[in-house]
Formats: sequence, C-alpha cells, structure tokens
Amino acid sequence: MRIAVLGGDGYCGWATSLYLSNKGHSVAIIDNFSRRQWDHEVGAETLTPIRPLSDRLRTWHQLTGKRIELFIGDVMDYDFLSSTLKEFEPDAVVHFAEQRAAPYSMIDRKHAVFTQVNNVVGTLNVLFALREFAPDCHLIKLGTMGEYGTPNIDIEEGYITIAHNGRKDVLPYPKQPGSFYHLSKVHDSHNIMFTCKIWGLRATDLNQGVVYGTMTDEVGLDEALINRFDYDEVFGTVLNRFCVQAAIGIPLTVYGKGGQTRGFLDIRDTVRCIEIACLNPAGKGEFRVFNQFTEQFSVLELASMVQMAGKKLGLQVELNHIPDPRVEAEEHYYNAKHSKLIELGLVPHLLSDSLLDSLMNIALKYRDRVDLSMMMPKVNWRQARNERNVQPGRIDLEPVTPRAAKRNGSRRSVTTAKPEVEYSKG
Amino acid sequence: MRIAVLGGDGYCGWATSLYLSNKGHSVAIIDNFSRRQWDHEVGAETLTPIRPLSDRLRTWHQLTGKRIELFIGDVMDYDFLSSTLKEFEPDAVVHFAEQRAAPYSMIDRKHAVFTQVNNVVGTLNVLFALREFAPDCHLIKLGTMGEYGTPNIDIEEGYITIAHNGRKDVLPYPKQPGSFYHLSKVHDSHNIMFTCKIWGLRATDLNQGVVYGTMTDEVGLDEALINRFDYDEVFGTVLNRFCVQAAIGIPLTVYGKGGQTRGFLDIRDTVRCIEIACLNPAGKGEFRVFNQFTEQFSVLELASMVQMAGKKLGLQVELNHIPDPRVEAEEHYYNAKHSKLIELGLVPHLLSDSLLDSLMNIALKYRDRVDLSMMMPKVNWRQARNERNVQPGRIDLEPVTPRAAKRNGSRRSVTTAKPEVEYSKG
Repeated sequence: MRIAVLGGDGYCGWATSLYLSNKGHSVAIIDNFSRRQWDHEVGAETLTPIRPLSDRLRTWHQLTGKRIELFIGDVMDYDFLSSTLKEFEPDAVVHFAEQRAAPYSMIDRKHAVFTQVNNVVGTLNVLFALREFAPDCHLIKLGTMGEYGTPNIDIEEGYITIAHNGRKDVLPYPKQPGSFYHLSKVHDSHNIMFTCKIWGLRATDLNQGVVYGTMTDEVGLDEALINRFDYDEVFGTVLNRFCVQAAIGIPLTVYGKGGQTRGFLDIRDTVRCIEIACLNPAGKGEFRVFNQFTEQFSVLELASMVQMAGKKLGLQVELNHIPDPRVEAEEHYYNAKHSKLIELGLVPHLLSDSLLDSLMNIALKYRDRVDLSMMMPKVNWRQARNERNVQPGRIDLEPVTPRAAKRNGSRRSVTTAKPEVEYSKG
Repeated sequence: MRIAVLGGDGYCGWATSLYLSNKGHSVAIIDNFSRRQWDHEVGAETLTPIRPLSDRLRTWHQLTGKRIELFIGDVMDYDFLSSTLKEFEPDAVVHFAEQRAAPYSMIDRKHAVFTQVNNVVGTLNVLFALREFAPDCHLIKLGTMGEYGTPNIDIEEGYITIAHNGRKDVLPYPKQPGSFYHLSKVHDSHNIMFTCKIWGLRATDLNQGVVYGTMTDEVGLDEALINRFDYDEVFGTVLNRFCVQAAIGIPLTVYGKGGQTRGFLDIRDTVRCIEIACLNPAGKGEFRVFNQFTEQFSVLELASMVQMAGKKLGLQVELNHIPDPRVEAEEHYYNAKHSKLIELGLVPHLLSDSLLDSLMNIALKYRDRVDLSMMMPKVNWRQARNERNVQPGRIDLEPVTPRAAKRNGSRRSVTTAKPEVEYSKG
C-alpha cells in the first residue's frame, strides 16, 4: 500500500514509518519538525540522542535498501498538503501531525489557542484535501483515550447504545477531556465524523492510550535509527519519567494519590495497530473508532512495577507524592473496552515483559543525559498563565553505572528540586 | 446588573441589549461589525433597513435617556477583549459574538476554517479573560439546538443519565452537529465545560433554537431601532425566507421532504431567556445547559402555517420542494426537552400569534427590498467548494401591495431561478 505518515518524524510516527516500510509498503513522511522545535521551546531534550531525519532516512536506506519519501512542510499549509497528497497518491493517510502534550496546551492562553488551532485546522485541511483529491483514501487518525475522561460507566469504542424513555439509539460516546490538548482531539473527532457523513470519507479514529517503549525491530537495527524517549514534565509520560527517576536514584514523583488509571500500550503494538487499520480500511462514509491500548494501570501500579524492576537492577526506588498539577480524579472507576483491534489480529506485548529491556535499561544507558530540572511539574492546570520562559541551566550528573548506583546505596545525593510553582487553588 | 453583550450589533444581540437596557441594567455592547461585513461578502442585505450602530445608540438614548456603552473591537483580539472586560467590570457576559450561519461555514475550506477558528478562539479568549480578570462573572454563551442533531431518543438539556452494564453516570449529552458552524458550537461547549471544572468559572450554555420575529417592545419604539430580518440563503432562516417568498408571490422553497424538525422561539423570548439567565446565575464551577426554544415544528408545518397566514392577507402561497442542499435526515424523530427556562419564569410567545404581525407584515412592508437572487441555495453540503464569488445583480420588483398581489392572481410572474448548482452526490 501507499501510506503517507503525517508527523513521521515524531515518536509514534517514526516507529510507524519504519515498520510499514519494512513490511513492504511505500511510505512517505510528511513533517515540518515542529516536535523538535517544541523541545527547543520548553528547553527539553529526548533522553535518547535522536538523529536528524535526513540521517535517519539515509541509514534506513543503507541498512534495508528501502526508501522512505520525505515531504517537508506543515499540514496547516493547505497548498502544501493538498499538492503533496496529489503527488503521492496514498491509499492511507496516518495522521500523527498534531501537538500532543497536555501540559504544553495548559501553559497559557497562547499555547491553548495554538494547540487547538494547529490540531483542528490541520485535521480540517487533511479532510478537505482528501475530499478534493483522494476521496477514497483511508484516513487513520490518532485520537486519545483521554477524550473519554473517567466516566463512572464502562468506556466503549467510540459509540454507546443508549436506551432512554422507551426509545434507543447508538450515539457517539460522551466526551469529558481533561486538557486543551485532549479537547482538540475531541473537536477533531466530531469534525471527522461529520465529513464521513457528508462526503463519504472513510476514517478510523484510534483512541490511543499512553505509549511506552523505544524499541521496535526496525528502530533497534542501528543507533542512528533510535527513537525519542521523552521524560520531561511537558512532553514526557509518567512511565518514562519514573524509569528515569529510578535510573538516577531520585524518588518517583507521583501526582496526588496516584489512583489515576489510564490505558497503556507498547510502541510495538502501536505500529502493529496502524498496520491493522491500514489493511482493514473503514467503509465508505464510515467513521470507525478503535480504543488502542492493551492494559490499564493506575499511576501507583506503574510506580510499584518500576520499583520491582529497579530492584532487579540493584536500584532502590522510593516514591514521593506531590500535589497533582492537573485537575483530575485521583481515584475513580475505569474500565475501557479495547477488543476491536484484538479481533483484527493484534497480539499485545505486556508491560511486565518490556519494562526492563525497553524502558529501564534505556533509562540507565542514557542516564548521563538526564536533565534534573525537567522533572518537576511547572504547568499547573489551575492557573491561566504558567511561566516557563526562564529555563534553568542543565544540572549535570556524573556518569554512573547501575552497579555503581548499587554501590552508592539507596539513592544518589542529588538535590531534587521542589515544585517551582505553588499550586494555589482558584 | 452590569452586562456586557458580545456581538450586540447582531440580530439577537441588538434586541437583547435594548431589552436589558430598558430593564435598568448597565449594558455595554462589544462588537466589530463582522455581521455587517459578512452581508457585504455574500452580497446580501437584511430585508429591514437597519441603521448604523452609532445611530441606533443615539436614538435609544434620545428616546429613553438610557445609554448603552460601546466598545468596538474583535473578541479574537485578546488585549482588546481583556482590557474591555477589566474596564467595564461586568457581572455577566452574554456571548453572541460568533459566525452563526451553517451555510456560510459550508461554502469552502476557508469559510469552514474561519468559522471554527473565529468561534473557538473567540470563546477561548472570553474564558481566559474571565479567569484572569473577572473570575466570578457569569458567562452566558449562545449555543444551538443544532449541537444535538436529530438522535432517535429524547434530547435532554445538556446532560443525560446513562445506565450501562450495571453502572450509572450523568454525562454530557452526545452531540451530532450538522455543519462546520454547528461543530464550532460543540467545540465551544466542551471548552467551556472544561474551564468551569478547572477554574471554577460559572457558565450557562443556551442551546437556542431558530429565532424568528423582528419586533420587541424596544425595537418597535422607532424605525431607527429596527432589527435585522435575514432571508438570504446564507444567513436567512427558513421561516423568514418563507414569509418573504409568500409576500412576493413565489413558491416557498422546501428543502427535500420538509420533515426536518427543529425548535423555534420568538425573539421576545430570546431576550427574556437571556435576562432570566442573568438573574439566576450558574454556581461557581457550574456548567449549566438550557435548551432555549418554545415550540418545535417541521419545515412542512412552517410552510403550512405561512400558507394559512398568507391566505388571511389575500396571498395565495404555493410550495416547491427542491433538492436538500444539506446532508440531514428529511424525516426523523424529534423530541427535545425545554423546561428549565420555563421553570425559571419564561412565558412563551407562540408562533401562531406572531406570524402575522412580526413576520408576514414585516415581509410585506419591505417587499420592495427583496433580492430574488438571494433565495435559492447555492451552498451544497456535499461539495468541498461552492462558488459564491460572482454575485448576480439585484432583480428589482415593482412595489406591490397585498391587495395588488391578490389582484394579480396566485403569484407574481417573476422568473424564479432554479438552483444554480447541481447537487451531485459524492
């Protein structure tokens, strides 16, 4: 198949592009390097030393003989996007090209507006370009499990049958997103559903959980292909942060009580899910929703798993509960369905099997690249303006091996910063 | 109370501003005349000869001794909006300042993007300005009944209790909006609900039906205060169009089968609902939704009421079913709750009582201002681009009184255009 990956230089996009290329598909990456730019803006860097995209693509070609086409530009630029799709003639468009960090969207008004405009207009552009130039192409859009929030009933896959006052209908599942970013994905979902209805577009919305892991078969071929590993407070995920904190011997920062429960999946399952969606396209006019995760964990369960994994590596890992910078239920019911991708052939990888190899050992390997100043939350949901302009300098760590860490006892004597903002309520 | 009316120069905004001013509230209008600009763009004009806002406000002051403050600017301009709210210090903000026409949003990509960005960012700006400078101020936001679409179950007011797999929760009512404009309102609703949760804002979302009528006690005081009466295919509503068509003796254009059913209300009820919301503010952190309409009618029922009203005036009115330019169910179940405003004291005006005075007689009075070229739909939901750039010249009508119309027989011999676009499917 001919598959265009919008945002193919990002974390999921890069792993997906390589996987699909390896499977024999003709892949084009469309990217404008926004994700790298946002790193500069927030003063963060991926733990893993990722290479420029041109290097990555050259290495991929040298190793495999396969070429991935590259179109450099912004999906916000309709002329660029539509001419690219006309030229490449994709059978499927995989749309990762959005600002994807909740904390980034919550920094202040400008970041909220940027996130919603960037994501909503980018997706509108994709929809119009498909309607005008590739009406039969299958759109595979990355949504998020965060669109649903944490309702007190089971979460279904996109739709729910509601019986009410003696009548019944299948309706879009109600959404209760928890950040301006998550809201942008809800807006997208409504826009896409509508264009499937009026224009007969075919779309699959993948409401993805939190993705973990750096390793896929393709990424592992060469250091030059290494993928991102974000652990900073803005773009990092809780599991990555915990692994890095364990690796450098500081307590894991649990936001609030830690009962927040979410869906998670290994990046090897992300890439497989995308392929499954490509190979099983939505029907004409169909807006299909899959919940794309494999296991659900609370933050405290994750912390405990990292503690146990750390123990195997000789690390003693402690927990530190800090005020939750987000406005979210810290304990709640959570049961989300996720059977549709399984029915189509997904065989999940489990976190318990991946934690050491794909997370803890990566964190340990690159631990001398850790920037301690990036660990504590500075973006508080309760404030309309969070100052992140002044970047503290990097706090250097001496290189320490796991064995050395063990020798040094329970934890390193680095001074861990307290949260730099007060969580004033109101 | 101190009440800021965003979009106070528009149809609902103007009637609301006068009503609230007359009731003794301190009113400020915030407007940038976008609505008048869009008339120029689409080549349409309100049937009624509205006056510049400066004239309107001067007349109001001369007649009543009351002053309405005016702040000229765009809610998209955060510095303007926030400094205005700081200066005026409102107790309530009534937010009408959005692009409000479904067909306008469906013209092409640029109009879709404009509508969603304008409405979503404008509302985000309002939310941030309230959070930063007026956190206790009550936001009264105009939503639309069109957010709900036409589900096969009863429509509740904003929320629905769902029992599912042995558990129960009260969740946001699922939304199935039918245009990029209606989608923008759904996006707004989600954004507002979220900010009520994280910042404790107080908001009332008024999901308004289709408003009809030009006359309120205040507007009727002087010709210089006259309100808009939009009948064109982009900004006009079906009832206004029918009345104008009846007045000039051409068949009523029914889109498709005419079974499309919607909620309607008299503009005298709109202004009263706004006052009721102001006087009964939402609680801190509460996102409250009222369905603001009084009666529901199908398009065919409206057509039949206009036929009967026409008969009383000596007009013979015929119907013409044309292909529906919209993608919508032409026959469907529709039962929408609307009791909350009634419980707070709304006493509805009924269409049967208003049709002659507030609609048919206005249409007849100004019938020589009718532009026939504005009547047939040129914006087709099924197309991604609708050409509206070339404006035909106005087709002049001789002035004809109802009596003359009767003399001339069943209908005037004007050549009524066929739809100027083919409704190709796909």
